Amino acid sequence: MALDIRTSELKEPVDVAEYLFRRLHEVGVRGVHGVPGDYNLVALDYVPKTGLNWVGNVNELNAGYAADGYARIKGISAVVTTFGVGELSLLNAIAGAYSEFVPIVHIVGTPSTLSQKDGMLLHHTLGNGNFEVFSEMSKNISCAMAKLNDPHEAATLIDNAIRECWVQSRPVYITLPTDMVQKKVEGERLKKPLDLDHPPNQSEKEDYVVDVVLKYLHAAKNPVILVDACAQRHRVLDEVHALIEKSNLPTFVAPMGKGAVDETLPNYGGVYAGDGSNEGVRDRVESSDLILSIGAIKSDFNTAGFTYRISQLSTIDFHSDYVRVKYSEYPGVRMQGVLKKVVAKMGKLNVQPGPTASNNIAHEDKGMSNNEVISHDWLWPRVGQWLQPDDIVITETGTANFGIWETKFPKGVSALSQVLWGSIGYSVGACQGAALAAKETGNRRTILFVGDGSFELTAQEVSTMIRQGLKPIIFLINNEGYTIERYIHGFDAPYNDIAQWNYTDLIPTFGGTPDNSKTYRVKTKQEAEDLFNDGEFAAAGKLQFVELFMPKEDAPKALKLTAKASAENNAKQ
Amino acid sequence: MALDIRTSELKEPVDVAEYLFRRLHEVGVRGVHGVPGDYNLVALDYVPKTGLNWVGNVNELNAGYAADGYARIKGISAVVTTFGVGELSLLNAIAGAYSEFVPIVHIVGTPSTLSQKDGMLLHHTLGNGNFEVFSEMSKNISCAMAKLNDPHEAATLIDNAIRECWVQSRPVYITLPTDMVQKKVEGERLKKPLDLDHPPNQSEKEDYVVDVVLKYLHAAKNPVILVDACAQRHRVLDEVHALIEKSNLPTFVAPMGKGAVDETLPNYGGVYAGDGSNEGVRDRVESSDLILSIGAIKSDFNTAGFTYRISQLSTIDFHSDYVRVKYSEYPGVRMQGVLKKVVAKMGKLNVQPGPTASNNIAHEDKGMSNNEVISHDWLWPRVGQWLQPDDIVITETGTANFGIWETKFPKGVSALSQVLWGSIGYSVGACQGAALAAKETGNRRTILFVGDGSFELTAQEVSTMIRQGLKPIIFLINNEGYTIERYIHGFDAPYNDIAQWNYTDLIPTFGGTPDNSKTYRVKTKQEAEDLFNDGEFAAAGKLQFVELFMPKEDAPKALKLTAKASAENNAKQ
Ligand SMILES: Cc1ncc(C[n+]2csc(CCOP(=O)(O)OP(=O)(O)O)c2C)c(N)n1
Ligand SMILES: Cc1ncc(C[n+]2csc(CCOP(=O)(O)OP(=O)(O)O)c2C)c(N)n1
Ligand SMILES: [Mg+2]
Ligand SMILES: [Mg+2]
Repeated sequence: MALDIRTSELKEPVDVAEYLFRRLHEVGVRGVHGVPGDYNLVALDYVPKTGLNWVGNVNELNAGYAADGYARIKGISAVVTTFGVGELSLLNAIAGAYSEFVPIVHIVGTPSTLSQKDGMLLHHTLGNGNFEVFSEMSKNISCAMAKLNDPHEAATLIDNAIRECWVQSRPVYITLPTDMVQKKVEGERLKKPLDLDHPPNQSEKEDYVVDVVLKYLHAAKNPVILVDACAQRHRVLDEVHALIEKSNLPTFVAPMGKGAVDETLPNYGGVYAGDGSNEGVRDRVESSDLILSIGAIKSDFNTAGFTYRISQLSTIDFHSDYVRVKYSEYPGVRMQGVLKKVVAKMGKLNVQPGPTASNNIAHEDKGMSNNEVISHDWLWPRVGQWLQPDDIVITETGTANFGIWETKFPKGVSALSQVLWGSIGYSVGACQGAALAAKETGNRRTILFVGDGSFELTAQEVSTMIRQGLKPIIFLINNEGYTIERYIHGFDAPYNDIAQWNYTDLIPTFGGTPDNSKTYRVKTKQEAEDLFNDGEFAAAGKLQFVELFMPKEDAPKALKLTAKASAENNAKQ
Repeated sequence: MALDIRTSELKEPVDVAEYLFRRLHEVGVRGVHGVPGDYNLVALDYVPKTGLNWVGNVNELNAGYAADGYARIKGISAVVTTFGVGELSLLNAIAGAYSEFVPIVHIVGTPSTLSQKDGMLLHHTLGNGNFEVFSEMSKNISCAMAKLNDPHEAATLIDNAIRECWVQSRPVYITLPTDMVQKKVEGERLKKPLDLDHPPNQSEKEDYVVDVVLKYLHAAKNPVILVDACAQRHRVLDEVHALIEKSNLPTFVAPMGKGAVDETLPNYGGVYAGDGSNEGVRDRVESSDLILSIGAIKSDFNTAGFTYRISQLSTIDFHSDYVRVKYSEYPGVRMQGVLKKVVAKMGKLNVQPGPTASNNIAHEDKGMSNNEVISHDWLWPRVGQWLQPDDIVITETGTANFGIWETKFPKGVSALSQVLWGSIGYSVGACQGAALAAKETGNRRTILFVGDGSFELTAQEVSTMIRQGLKPIIFLINNEGYTIERYIHGFDAPYNDIAQWNYTDLIPTFGGTPDNSKTYRVKTKQEAEDLFNDGEFAAAGKLQFVELFMPKEDAPKALKLTAKASAENNAKQ
């Protein structure tokens, strides 16, 4: 265990906590999320010392969600919790980040190595002397673990954990015992930045795959491109954009890939999700003889309940750790290098036009009358007309996550959601993290659409937004409960009802004042129209909270399809 | 896997979900806590069918805390969550229940056994086909696991899990796949109630231990009794009360044992916690030549930072699974049978008087002036004067958990807190569960003392209290942040500050009306005095929320001692 490094051996001694936070600063972290606890307090003193900003979330789960939102915008994030009580509170957020490939460095302040060795009966333990139970729980939802029990290896473990977090784009878990915080490690190492690059593909193998891809691509009669989440999460958007622009092929996104593609390009065709696709998209994609599928995650909610009708015989799959051409698999070949060369070597292709995405409001909803209720058919294209370039749009599991499929984005919009993991309440925390990231990096608007049911799980994080001077626009969909669940089972069951809050009153309750915040209650299309046309609202100069009243029976078409498929799958005997 | 039971083989076929909920009803559960999700919705239809009441919490962590509070009053509880996202959200609450011996039946609705076998890429999964990761996380914080994957064994597994939960007084974990909910099992079994008794101690061994105990007890010059948490949690309070009354020995409680003893008895002497003891108690306990220590958990916060000065040579320890007399251990001998016989066979003892506990307010605070700030020295004895018999008193980690050591209870008061696990936010959820239990069983008042920092983690559960028509009295201590943490490290550090809310406004925001709720803001001792003398307030006819303003630098003496010891232990090199 912890042998002492003699400080005289070190060229530039720095404390372990300082080393850790300086590395985090180096990879781009500025805001550090989390909740204090006595096992991490001394470490927190190093946050301001290393030029970082302590957020101070209201609880740990929210902190985890916030770190997820922050990482999706800034590329990586950090969250600090305390042993046991703190770290267990955000396992759900970490599991979500693991599932959806979001790089979060989770740092847990633990009892001292001495107390652990002695099996002391400390607070935040199970009372059985076992100090390993909690870290075990994080094992399968972290791509690396670093237990900083020994100053000799602390710097190496920190470097490795941060590197793995970035490269694998998944959470890592670091324990920092109280007696290690101020132990000395070699600060000289910090002069050399971490190497965050992947090793390149083996070039002969890569060339081979590129040739196979090109052979089929050149031969195809009406190829299309389909972009999904892993293209974003594994950072190949530059390559994907080059491919889209050079090839001019009709391009579609899966729901989890929303925001990955410039939707203003003339060859952008809309969302493909089997039966839940945008108008005209399903036929176009499913009749294609070659689909370049990039970073696909074919989960139930991402495919409107497994309703893809695409043959593997007409598919090339590009992934972070393999490529598959029809049924030929090429394990270990990362998509990045392959895509780069495919773009470089590509000749003239057959390009057949695809459908064109638009934000036109569906016909039956076009005749807007003053007092009409707000419907999903109307709302989501209308939102698309109102969005601005570079907006950050966050949607919550529920009607919002399916509605957004019908919103065509301006250029540069980032979309955040949890289509695979689907933990409700996520979006409120993520909004705090994303809005902080937006504030750190410029002036992007941060816009949240969240259902009333989901909002209630994590509502208090709005107070962190107020406290940190963030200015998101929050649309709360008040539809009297869990509409998505109603469509799965128990349409009128009491368990799908929720406590009715006076939502807009939360803002002043959480410390909002007219100077830093404004609330709206919007019950009709005309009122929504007025809001969307309000320049001051659009300017997002303060935190704005809009309660949108929508009928509890209304839901986007794609949600109805997906809910029905889920119910059937659950019931299958 | 799931072979079909032929229904014709069953004498009285009932659905698995019905069987489960009827067993829970049988052991005393009425309110079922939890949050719906598509993998548990069909199961929830059985809750009202079996005479149970669905609570519908705002989020899962709160549901877990509520189930903990409910179980501490009613003896056992149940909480239902959904796969992955739901179950992981309350691991912290379950770990707390494991640590503190609280019996909670945690039921997780999971994807169907078919979907699991096929490794389907479903929502709420890690996307890697591994459906076991989440249940693995619950393994070390559950005393039994029951995966209901096969109707043939479902009834047996359910019976076993509920029995273990009760007997070991710890959480159990049950998975209920969607395709198992309506599978048939033998309903005849339900005619025979579960056997919840422990097997008795082996009688020769028990008699041996009893004789040893009696020998030392009769020889002792000034024995005392010290009662701690496990006496409550392992249900030996009847035996303990018989011992206290028959022996007439001076009796003390550890902080975690508060509420276990009738504090109005003339031989009740107060709280023993080493240096943090009530006045006069430490000397009396530490000078005793024989301490009958019942159900001790000698954790840091329960001993004011390990400041007991008791020799094992003058201690007899009674535990749920062993007895230890000085250094002689008797493993496998449960305290219950031993205590019963000790009481029965006990002769005349030496009884030296101990100190007498009272709610007298400390001298320096007696001269009350109108506008004086509310201090901890003043508050806690004053609360003791105001409490009524059979009240349920919940205190949160922070100043409240230490302050309550100075409150002498009327007869029949139950005290809930998490001195060992110490997860903040716990008390708000626990208050909902306890208040529901109180409503189910009669008219006990439910009274919560919670710090502002802790309250913010789980505040929204107050809306469940309003929705369920519960009538707790909530005292929120507004001292501008994490005072307990300030005393450990970073007295003025920004990380110990919190978002300032307008706390009383939360009540109407969460749906409170003058009919069902009332709020108070109390800034001086005189205002507090007035409130404590207000008969309508005391009658607790509606939900009442009191914001108590206290100085951020003030803390109970025991907290200061414990915090200092924690800081020193954390820093030890
Ligand atoms: C943490 C967590 N608990 C429970 C669920 C199950 N669940 C999925 S969606 C949903 C309801 C969401 O309701 P709301 O946010 O109001 O959405 P909408 O009414 O717009 O569909 C629930 C309870 C979940 N996904 N995550
Ligand atoms: C879930 C969890 N997160 C963090 C902590 C660390 N912690 C212990 S006490 C405390 C502050 C409590 O503050 P408050 O409730 O205001 O109590 P008071 O000011 O009365 O001491 C914190 C953050 C914890 N115990 N549990
Ligand atoms: Mg809703
Ligand atoms: Mg406080």
